[in-house]
Amino acid sequence: MPTFQTVRGMRDLLGEEAVAFTFIISKARETASLYGYKEVITPVVEPLELLSAKSGEEIRQRMFIFKDLGERSVALRPEFTASIARLTTTALKNEPKPLRLFSVGSVYRYDEPQRGRYREFWQSNFELMGSSKPEADAEIILLTNSLMQNLGLQGYTFKIGHIGVIRGILSQEGVDEKTQNAVLQRMDKKEYDEAFRLVQSEKARIMLQGLLTLKGSSPQETVEKIGAYVADYPKAKGAAENLNEVLRLVTESGCPVEFVEPAFARGLEYYTGVIFEVYIHELDIALGGGGRYDKLIEVFGGDPTPAVGCAHGIDRIALALQTQKTALATKQEKKVAVLPITEALRVEALKIAQQFRAAGVTVEFEVMGRKMAKALEDADKRKMDYAVIVGERELKEGAVVVKDLASREQSTVPIQKLLEKIKS
Amino acid sequence: MPTFQTVRGMRDLLGEEAVAFTFIISKARETASLYGYKEVITPVVEPLELLSAKSGEEIRQRMFIFKDLGERSVALRPEFTASIARLTTTALKNEPKPLRLFSVGSVYRYDEPQRGRYREFWQSNFELMGSSKPEADAEIILLTNSLMQNLGLQGYTFKIGHIGVIRGILSQEGVDEKTQNAVLQRMDKKEYDEAFRLVQSEKARIMLQGLLTLKGSSPQETVEKIGAYVADYPKAKGAAENLNEVLRLVTESGCPVEFVEPAFARGLEYYTGVIFEVYIHELDIALGGGGRYDKLIEVFGGDPTPAVGCAHGIDRIALALQTQKTALATKQEKKVAVLPITEALRVEALKIAQQFRAAGVTVEFEVMGRKMAKALEDADKRKMDYAVIVGERELKEGAVVVKDLASREQSTVPIQKLLEKIKS
Repeated sequence: MPTFQTVRGMRDLLGEEAVAFTFIISKARETASLYGYKEVITPVVEPLELLSAKSGEEIRQRMFIFKDLGERSVALRPEFTASIARLTTTALKNEPKPLRLFSVGSVYRYDEPQRGRYREFWQSNFELMGSSKPEADAEIILLTNSLMQNLGLQGYTFKIGHIGVIRGILSQEGVDEKTQNAVLQRMDKKEYDEAFRLVQSEKARIMLQGLLTLKGSSPQETVEKIGAYVADYPKAKGAAENLNEVLRLVTESGCPVEFVEPAFARGLEYYTGVIFEVYIHELDIALGGGGRYDKLIEVFGGDPTPAVGCAHGIDRIALALQTQKTALATKQEKKVAVLPITEALRVEALKIAQQFRAAGVTVEFEVMGRKMAKALEDADKRKMDYAVIVGERELKEGAVVVKDLASREQSTVPIQKLLEKIKS
Repeated sequence: MPTFQTVRGMRDLLGEEAVAFTFIISKARETASLYGYKEVITPVVEPLELLSAKSGEEIRQRMFIFKDLGERSVALRPEFTASIARLTTTALKNEPKPLRLFSVGSVYRYDEPQRGRYREFWQSNFELMGSSKPEADAEIILLTNSLMQNLGLQGYTFKIGHIGVIRGILSQEGVDEKTQNAVLQRMDKKEYDEAFRLVQSEKARIMLQGLLTLKGSSPQETVEKIGAYVADYPKAKGAAENLNEVLRLVTESGCPVEFVEPAFARGLEYYTGVIFEVYIHELDIALGGGGRYDKLIEVFGGDPTPAVGCAHGIDRIALALQTQKTALATKQEKKVAVLPITEALRVEALKIAQQFRAAGVTVEFEVMGRKMAKALEDADKRKMDYAVIVGERELKEGAVVVKDLASREQSTVPIQKLLEKIKS
């Protein structure tokens, strides 16, 4: 007897949950189209070398790695960015910039499973390549805003920061990049003591500790305070100014930024500029996030290419929609059960079913050969709108019996008026 | 420097090819809805035990198998049916029958890559559980027909057969099931000599050889000839009668069946009844296929459940659409480039962009900070319909400049009339 369970940390999505997933994916695709992002589909399985090039030590240790039958080291993608970077440096190398790319699909990380966190999870991913301007950062945040809005999420907010603030301080105090990465990783997990312990320079430590407590009465004020606080650190100050500009562009375009986090860090090592996450108040996990990564394309052998991108967690968004009991804005088409009274009438009934389907009406055809009472009972259970009963007597007159399963009304309807009747 | 290539046998889908894929997937989803199939999303990674339960020896040897970090033997799904069978025997065990399930996604087989055959490929998959009636077989064929039709494929045809004809002969002549599977596998590959060499019974061999040459002037006639040919083999005869009934239901419902293949076999071991494939004349690989598998659910520990299903190869359908130069019936929305003349106007320009997007218009916002001439040239290259130029002078009067990039006409348009102008 085979195993009846899914692999630990992976799951089947059924019923309303599957509907929510396809709804979110369709909204992400719609957002991509509205913002001019072209969809690309990359493999789930990628060369290990590609995926481990710059994913961050932490993700590397959590990848599903194996050898294929040709002894190639491969892994399941833990995110989309490496695959997109490959495209940018190969097939799309000569495309005019900016390059706007969209992907959606499953990604894989060997994490401890918990609510909203799975080993197979789904992301929609947007990358904007070729622009170092704040309006590029703003666009990525604004499209995330559009997506959240179009999904019908309530009271979602953005948290925003700039990786250059911490890096600017650490660099100037002589902390090497590898240590910086380790510090940022700890800070991302809010393990501040462990993070600071990695920093040799006392001055840098004090500066970071001070950053943590910095807070204004508004996002704008917080950014100004950061700017003042790092006045002696030119790179960090430049980061604060850049953050200020992006913040202005997105807030004035109607994007709800709740707060600026001075010591904001995100796990992935490749960020170089503005970073952000989006939340709803009911959940303490981010629904999505992203940021600027101006050095990554070089790592993949491409020409220096400024870039900014984001990913949205579809599993988490589905959880958020469920938590907020959001009614999904999906089209509800009419559903009809077509029931031939006898076997001899199956062909005629099938033809009627095909007419309905050609007109966009959902038909569940009676394939069980059940008695009429049983079939009608079942149509009720399945929440069909109508039962169309194909009987010999009515058929001779070019008609069928239509039963409205909500009102229980029943009438004989000529076949050529059937669609009109059902669609009304 | 990391590897720039995809894993052998896997590929990136870009531009028109990605558009074709999402188009096919959306049509498959639409077909599922029209026929009352509920979508389920199952993991790409499954327990090896589940996948190897009844996939056929051949597929087992071509799976991507590995151990996860918890030392579990897992594999990438080579098809959907095992996962769906799991669902049917667990989470959906108590759902009323018939159960109609739809899935779409990537599957994995370690085959020698060639035109139309990849190691990662995409399928849409439909399963109808609970009915042993011919109208259930007919439904699966008819929905495949609807999908091909809605995709715009020309001159596609169905090949249909019944696995019970060969099995009926072999069983009656004392050939055990394992040998039957091996024979069917060879016959599927048209390796008839190798197939017949496996059959000890001379009578069975002669019967199979005769089957190969059986041919009528129409599908109906071929089925009748099969029935007469196997008159002394009750099980095989029953299979021919069942095939005849399904054939009648689908052809009378407008499905183009080109021929009935008397010795039709499909690679997967689990088929028990009618089997079919769909082709276009320009390609010698099937675009999809399926059949009845009445014993499979039991293998997965469920109650005996008759079932019929099919899968469509999205990569191959995309190749077919490309071969036939089919214009994809996708909506073409208007595309607008929004270009602020100066940095100071970015916020106003972003607001205009957001208004367009809210109304369903695709906007590519100028994120490169380029001079107007350069930005306009780029908008041309990207085949935008309009450029909306946001300048200070016009903005003071609540207007912007709109340039029709096809006619090269340029006019000043009040912001509140912008949408009307663009959408006209």
